[in-house]
Amino acid sequence: MVLNYKLILKVDAAIGILLAVAMIPSLIVSLLYNETDAAVAFARCIAPMLLLGSFAVYKIRPTTSTLHMRDGFLIVASSWILASIFGSVPFLLSHTIPSFVDAFFETASGFSTTGSTILTNIELLPKGILFWRSFTHWLGGMGILVFAIALLPALGIGGQRIIRAETPGPTLDKLSPKISDTARILYSMYFGMTLLEVILLCLGGVSLYDSLVHTFGTVGTGGLSSYNDSIAHFNSIYVDIVITIFMVLAGINFNLYYLLLQKRIKDFFSDYELRGYLLIIGIATILIALNLWFTKTYDTIGESLRYSVFQAASITTTTGYGTADFNLWPTFSKMVLFLLMFVGGSSSSTGGGVKVIRVLILLKLIRRGIYRKLHPRAIVPVKIQGRSIPSDTVSGITSFAVLYVCLLLFGSLVISLENFDMMTSISSVAACLGNIGPGFELVGPSSNYSMFSDFSKMFLSFYMLIGRLELFTIILLFSKLFWNPDR
Amino acid sequence: MVLNYKLILKVDAAIGILLAVAMIPSLIVSLLYNETDAAVAFARCIAPMLLLGSFAVYKIRPTTSTLHMRDGFLIVASSWILASIFGSVPFLLSHTIPSFVDAFFETASGFSTTGSTILTNIELLPKGILFWRSFTHWLGGMGILVFAIALLPALGIGGQRIIRAETPGPTLDKLSPKISDTARILYSMYFGMTLLEVILLCLGGVSLYDSLVHTFGTVGTGGLSSYNDSIAHFNSIYVDIVITIFMVLAGINFNLYYLLLQKRIKDFFSDYELRGYLLIIGIATILIALNLWFTKTYDTIGESLRYSVFQAASITTTTGYGTADFNLWPTFSKMVLFLLMFVGGSSSSTGGGVKVIRVLILLKLIRRGIYRKLHPRAIVPVKIQGRSIPSDTVSGITSFAVLYVCLLLFGSLVISLENFDMMTSISSVAACLGNIGPGFELVGPSSNYSMFSDFSKMFLSFYMLIGRLELFTIILLFSKLFWNPDR
Repeated sequence: MVLNYKLILKVDAAIGILLAVAMIPSLIVSLLYNETDAAVAFARCIAPMLLLGSFAVYKIRPTTSTLHMRDGFLIVASSWILASIFGSVPFLLSHTIPSFVDAFFETASGFSTTGSTILTNIELLPKGILFWRSFTHWLGGMGILVFAIALLPALGIGGQRIIRAETPGPTLDKLSPKISDTARILYSMYFGMTLLEVILLCLGGVSLYDSLVHTFGTVGTGGLSSYNDSIAHFNSIYVDIVITIFMVLAGINFNLYYLLLQKRIKDFFSDYELRGYLLIIGIATILIALNLWFTKTYDTIGESLRYSVFQAASITTTTGYGTADFNLWPTFSKMVLFLLMFVGGSSSSTGGGVKVIRVLILLKLIRRGIYRKLHPRAIVPVKIQGRSIPSDTVSGITSFAVLYVCLLLFGSLVISLENFDMMTSISSVAACLGNIGPGFELVGPSSNYSMFSDFSKMFLSFYMLIGRLELFTIILLFSKLFWNPDR
Repeated sequence: MVLNYKLILKVDAAIGILLAVAMIPSLIVSLLYNETDAAVAFARCIAPMLLLGSFAVYKIRPTTSTLHMRDGFLIVASSWILASIFGSVPFLLSHTIPSFVDAFFETASGFSTTGSTILTNIELLPKGILFWRSFTHWLGGMGILVFAIALLPALGIGGQRIIRAETPGPTLDKLSPKISDTARILYSMYFGMTLLEVILLCLGGVSLYDSLVHTFGTVGTGGLSSYNDSIAHFNSIYVDIVITIFMVLAGINFNLYYLLLQKRIKDFFSDYELRGYLLIIGIATILIALNLWFTKTYDTIGESLRYSVFQAASITTTTGYGTADFNLWPTFSKMVLFLLMFVGGSSSSTGGGVKVIRVLILLKLIRRGIYRKLHPRAIVPVKIQGRSIPSDTVSGITSFAVLYVCLLLFGSLVISLENFDMMTSISSVAACLGNIGPGFELVGPSSNYSMFSDFSKMFLSFYMLIGRLELFTIILLFSKLFWNPDR
């Protein structure tokens, strides 16, 4: 089968138009703050993208509107890559980030909801530009929800699919079989969550601008801030609590919110992945808080809890915001955060990483292994909430896990050529692949990614996109099998 | 089914007798070097162990001689633990290692062929004691061969078993169905390899004592040396080459040597795992050599190759000997070695770690994952040399891999309570679980494990034994399922 290149191009052109439209709010912000350079940059970006995009959408006439699976993979991969290229133009035109590699890194970090930055002094940038930088998180988060809930199942990417077999009662996709309907419901929830957080932050005395910027970073589980010291800037327990709650909410499977809309609270809380997710954050919070308290890193258990719950939620959901420089914490607390880097948010959330449900199923394989040593001839399915997980799904998850570890190790090897310390190499790759943001040592929360070479920055940018698109969507494109599927 | 405790105890008593006999060479060495204290310590250890052991073997009369699978697991686990306890007595009685925890660590490190040490100045110890310390490697290596080739298949531990389906033509177990016969052939090969290396080292001007000690550490893939700077002490290219070759030989599946005895050279070299094993060492050697050369760590490419091939072979085979302090090498070289820590030797060799065949099969799962994204309905077996691997075996390997990663992460968390840096925590656990020996930073090759607390030393000692016995043998004992198999 030949790929439907014309239709793929047409979709990409449409994404260009959408991006141009998405830049209009940032243009308005620039005008409101009298940032002429930034406003001109946005205008010079929006106009040609709208014109060229519309022209392309009008001109390109695919012979057929049928999309096969491979077309779907190519559309998703090219969308994120193109968005990261087009989205970096305002940084370049405004000369705020003059290097293309840097601008691409920053934009890929935005759209992939990673939150790593190459900026050494964020606060120097115009507000309009910083608005756009954070808005990419919000767009990326919305994109990933549609991708994860509506497109991925259609593309047959495993793991995310489990939720269907698992969620009791009717789920979103059963209720609204059309992708466009599912997307609309998701948008509404995402908008609602955004609005609520903005209002709550404003009520806490945060300016509307700051509320918007940090809400984009929260609900998209992104992590880019307009301040060098991230959420610590506000120095407010209220802000910490609001952002912690919304980070946790953004890392929950969005399908589950439908249960809440139906007032099925019990079904909501009986979800296996949700319980695991909350338990992981809870245990990590307690372990870190006790460690911080015992080591007298903070004076009181209350203060220790304040910082530990924020950081545990921030890393588990792969947001990456910080209220403290956890790189200065005792090793045990750092190790807990390092382990959380390999968990990630729930499936069908805006969170990245391996995803809680995959981790839980992988852990079940240990028990199965033990059982089979004692009963070698027994056939033991992996069960969740009493239901067997199909062996296809399990094998999809193990493939994913092996690929994740291989990408992590290979990436660490490549980045180690920079000759920074080993933990910087490993954690920078883990933080980018898992869409988290900060790592340890030189890429710790008080630092940034500016010291990497252009090659490493491009490499890490692609790792963010690979991680964001569930690995296979991009890795497939490097496989001979993809281009010769009939072999 | 009730465990056959009496028979298990009887076997353990027999192991006590064997250990006492195994201490006689060390006693002789002590006498030869006029080390009275050490000689007395050995004598005071041998006599009661012989007497009590014989008495127990004579007195304990099991009602049945039938051993079930669970008895087998308990025998293997208790053998290694008891050997590590009894074997530490000479260190205690001679006051060379006065603390029990330290002595247990050193002996567990010996029997598990790990090679980590808590000694800060090895060369102060009597020669008889150091002989015993290294002899435990040799005994452990022999024990593991019998365990891996004769007992494990009987106990149904997967992964190691693959070699049967894979090796073309008749294999050891087919030719000699009795465990005792298999063991005898293995002993002969192991003895032969030992003898050959001792002769070659002596020919290179190494004293007989040093030749023996370092041969024990090589063929057992252990890594304990009688010198503080390990193999660098000899400063001889000849010694480096001999030890490199024998490390590589000890890390090859011992079943394959039977093919060589039958002069089936081609079959030997067509073995899938062997090729992968040699390829991994080869690629690692080249990568490290180039990195050392380009960074001018060493002046010539020849010198770079000399150190890189030794270290690549030493870490891959999980021996752990050193000719250079690789902790001072550039990060890229260190990262290559770090990755090698997760490979390990071949199945049915004296090497530890995950084992090459498991790594190769896990890598195949990625390709299967890609294939299934494109052909969701296809049933794709994992194939090696054209033959399908049973899905049972594949699932056994994934269980093993998940457990390995979990043990590594959990162990790193526990060790991080010591508040050393993260890489010290992670690599000390990786080095002990993989039976390697040295890690990075504070547990680097020029350092040792003396700074850990007693708790951590005990923890790491058990990790060595867990890693040595293919994880499940010991982990099973912590499982409810093991003690209530009929649930």
